[in-house]
Amino acid sequence: GLCGLGAAARGAEGSPLPCQAPQQWEGRQVLYLQSSSRNSRSLISYDGLNQRIRVLDERKALIPCKRFFEYILLYKDRVMFQIEQATKQCSKITLQDPWDPLDIPQNSTFEDQYSIGGPQEQIMVQEWSNRKSARSYETWIGIYTLKDCYPVQETFTKNYSVILSTRFFDIHLGIKDPSVFTPPSTCQTAQPERMSEDCSL
Amino acid sequence: GLCGLGAAARGAEGSPLPCQAPQQWEGRQVLYLQSSSRNSRSLISYDGLNQRIRVLDERKALIPCKRFFEYILLYKDRVMFQIEQATKQCSKITLQDPWDPLDIPQNSTFEDQYSIGGPQEQIMVQEWSNRKSARSYETWIGIYTLKDCYPVQETFTKNYSVILSTRFFDIHLGIKDPSVFTPPSTCQTAQPERMSEDCSL
Repeated sequence: GLCGLGAAARGAEGSPLPCQAPQQWEGRQVLYLQSSSRNSRSLISYDGLNQRIRVLDERKALIPCKRFFEYILLYKDRVMFQIEQATKQCSKITLQDPWDPLDIPQNSTFEDQYSIGGPQEQIMVQEWSNRKSARSYETWIGIYTLKDCYPVQETFTKNYSVILSTRFFDIHLGIKDPSVFTPPSTCQTAQPERMSEDCSL
Repeated sequence: GLCGLGAAARGAEGSPLPCQAPQQWEGRQVLYLQSSSRNSRSLISYDGLNQRIRVLDERKALIPCKRFFEYILLYKDRVMFQIEQATKQCSKITLQDPWDPLDIPQNSTFEDQYSIGGPQEQIMVQEWSNRKSARSYETWIGIYTLKDCYPVQETFTKNYSVILSTRFFDIHLGIKDPSVFTPPSTCQTAQPERMSEDCSL
């Protein structure tokens, strides 16, 4: 590998230790949801320090009758704002799940290490999971770069079946404009129902 | 990007031209099949010059009651050998589809370019598809590295739904041992039926 083989920390038995993923970054993601079998693309601003995420749908594919949204998730307030990009119509929804940072938990299981790309043009990554023994299923697999621990892919599974998979790219460190986490004024009179992605509804 | 921005060829109108993927290489792959929602891992030897591929299931996950196979696909002979790793039991199956090389066809549509990883630890890749206009669906998306055109991911879709997706990694150029394309002697008396991956059948 090009990028600092041996840079990763190792535990007492010689097995690798999880690296510490960056806490504030911006980039892009492609999300694959098994229930719809579809890829959806968005910009993401990730602020682990303040437990908040902002997602902006990318208007790449010309899918007929699709609405594009912005999502602002504020986990400390347990609230998510869903804003339609065209009309600024806003929904305010209570977050049920607790904050789950985009990183490798310290008690994770090391699964694999490999290069993406090829000779002279590659990055080394590690795969981690929450598998507890050789005979149990994992429900999470995270792929992170070896040296600086950038997220590459996160996959959630059930009985080895992929439910949700997200690829990350174009990652830049830091949050360029923190105001992206501030909902627009239309959210002061937000509706409580989530808006459908399909414009016919 | 670290790796030779501007190295990619450009067409008359300034849009990028597809790069030429390597014709002989070995590596690993993870295949995601929508019908089973499962990831399966294997070693792959790819010989585009002779239109043949060898795939060896990796015995990574301890999935209960799973058989592991080796596959030898010889497109010039339109035949695939399926060999059970444990017993060397062999099936000989006619290939219905013509040879489709693992590369970017010259008439492909440039979709996107981005980095995987992050600052100081990244590769630049390009996304290509077989989409013919802004309003039509693509059925194939290929992700290849910018400079040396190593395959990173191939996805087959239908109506924007992912049917089959393969990630490639640990790529090395050349074929170390060409005898991997020679079926074992048990294939001289091969059965014509494909063996099931499930050992209960």
